[in-house]
Amino acid sequence: MMMQLLQQTIQRIQPTNNTMKEKAKERIDSLSKPPSSLGKLESLAIQLAGITGELYPKLDNKVIIVCAADHGVCEEGVTSNPQNVTFLQTLNFPKGVTGVCAIAKITNAKIVTVDVGVKEDIPLDAKVLMKKIKHGTDNMAKGPAMIREEAIQSIEVGIEIATAEIAKGANVLGTGEMGIGNTTPSAAILSVLRGCHPQEVTGFGAGLGAGGIEHKVAIIQKAIEINKPNRHDALDILAKVGGLEIGAMAGSILAAAANRKPVVIDGFISTIAALIAYELEPKVQDYIIPSHASEEPGAKIAAELLGVEPMLHMNMRLGEGSGAALAFPILDAACSMMSNMATLAETMALVEEK
Amino acid sequence: MMMQLLQQTIQRIQPTNNTMKEKAKERIDSLSKPPSSLGKLESLAIQLAGITGELYPKLDNKVIIVCAADHGVCEEGVTSNPQNVTFLQTLNFPKGVTGVCAIAKITNAKIVTVDVGVKEDIPLDAKVLMKKIKHGTDNMAKGPAMIREEAIQSIEVGIEIATAEIAKGANVLGTGEMGIGNTTPSAAILSVLRGCHPQEVTGFGAGLGAGGIEHKVAIIQKAIEINKPNRHDALDILAKVGGLEIGAMAGSILAAAANRKPVVIDGFISTIAALIAYELEPKVQDYIIPSHASEEPGAKIAAELLGVEPMLHMNMRLGEGSGAALAFPILDAACSMMSNMATLAETMALVEEK
Repeated sequence: MMMQLLQQTIQRIQPTNNTMKEKAKERIDSLSKPPSSLGKLESLAIQLAGITGELYPKLDNKVIIVCAADHGVCEEGVTSNPQNVTFLQTLNFPKGVTGVCAIAKITNAKIVTVDVGVKEDIPLDAKVLMKKIKHGTDNMAKGPAMIREEAIQSIEVGIEIATAEIAKGANVLGTGEMGIGNTTPSAAILSVLRGCHPQEVTGFGAGLGAGGIEHKVAIIQKAIEINKPNRHDALDILAKVGGLEIGAMAGSILAAAANRKPVVIDGFISTIAALIAYELEPKVQDYIIPSHASEEPGAKIAAELLGVEPMLHMNMRLGEGSGAALAFPILDAACSMMSNMATLAETMALVEEK
Repeated sequence: MMMQLLQQTIQRIQPTNNTMKEKAKERIDSLSKPPSSLGKLESLAIQLAGITGELYPKLDNKVIIVCAADHGVCEEGVTSNPQNVTFLQTLNFPKGVTGVCAIAKITNAKIVTVDVGVKEDIPLDAKVLMKKIKHGTDNMAKGPAMIREEAIQSIEVGIEIATAEIAKGANVLGTGEMGIGNTTPSAAILSVLRGCHPQEVTGFGAGLGAGGIEHKVAIIQKAIEINKPNRHDALDILAKVGGLEIGAMAGSILAAAANRKPVVIDGFISTIAALIAYELEPKVQDYIIPSHASEEPGAKIAAELLGVEPMLHMNMRLGEGSGAALAFPILDAACSMMSNMATLAETMALVEEK
């Protein structure tokens, strides 16, 4: 049934485990180090305890779900990249040769590639999960990017894929995307959610000449004016000025939260997807872990709106989930701090043993 | 011969390999991604190519050298931590239970602990390298922290240890330290190098009450006034208002550069040590890789002076080399980008093959 999966998933999202968070904080404060001196590693360990309900979680099965889709708004010239790069690059993820693949190798993270709405047909043997809803969104500068049912379907694809990966053993997820032109719907969504002029949140994306930015802003403004998305209805915003991969990523995030798994978001597009998930169910926030501060100007504003603070400052703007992959070792470090550091009392006992 | 090792080491430091840097940049620009979209991973890969002379370096043998020493200035009450924590914690590194040990585990980095000047005698079976120069520095608020020969000796200890680790196969080093009170000499050195009032570069360190900071600033000011370190003589600064572990870390950095190995510096104290190394031989800069932005206010100023920009923003202020350990996976990601990402031409060939 349409929307049943989405509603069920949202209903399953519970607050994180406060008792376990307190226990984690207690242990961290007893470790052999000045109070709070490990900063965000400490807050991360507390968050992970709350999410997993375990004091010593092991996040040894990492999966990045890369959602691919195209954008009808590309016909307005909002990017200088050819649109078929979405198709070509989608084929490259299963081959392990893209940026996120290379970075994911450092923690043996698996990449799962999903076609939610690539314009071209993906070959059957491409090892891409086939969940195409339509051959790219419609041009939002002329009407809604998709109908409401398609937006719901895109979220449910994300839920389905993420739930399947968790069932197979994934204990931490990362969000990634491939979609030429997708900084345009992302900036549009952010502009609506924040109630600000698109100019404030629009950047060069993956490739746009200096003159192109004013045109991009004008197109976003036009899309918002024509479609009049309802600020208080995330599904309406996603449908009218969003994207299929953005919906799928929001679904992955909801599914992670419903299954009490941490989810590491990537840069600008991922943070926008997280905001859609947050609008649908604010409790997801506690399950979301930020990664890098994207170069895209809207990324900072989106992170603030979501209430997260990126840890990595790498001047990256590739997307694909590359920043999420780069943050995975930080989660490992937080887990290692919990399980491998001694408490002050333990180190004293070690000294006295001698 | 006193100072012979230091002079020889400095003379061996060569500029990094420009040809290889250009080759690396060429390859990076040909990879299947928007130009410059992997930001600092790209500049890091170029730097690593220049340092190692290899296009595809493998940094699979990581070593963090933790230099431990005490500070006579502690008797002025510049820290609220008991001084014997230096001794107690030094014993904990070989046991693998400290913060840096836990973080180092995520990349299998080895921790080497060196006593350059701990006040107490380290037990012979503690698996700590015994290179004690003296039982802690003298109180710099009353006279020089050490004599010039001791400062040179401390640097040479670092050179010796780092060179030995490189000979054993280390292909990347990290700097770490343990020394209660060592933000005080660090702030003093920075104040002299930058020619600014200690107030601008003095923070709470690992533990100091709110009222304590003015007193700490006053002590640093007094130490500088009494000793009059020569701004243009790094050995004079290190001797008069420095520390034995700071000298040893500077030595590790010089040895890394002399042996064409990258060295990842930790936070405040490490950056100060790097500045000492830089003053002795500016070419070391090209071999230095920053890690995290320490919470200590002087850290940012020191990083600017050294011309490096930390990648991790974790609000950490533990020291030990914990930030360096957390940055190691970023180096791995840069190497993986070089060896595992396909060029645009290669991905096109992959598509056509089908």
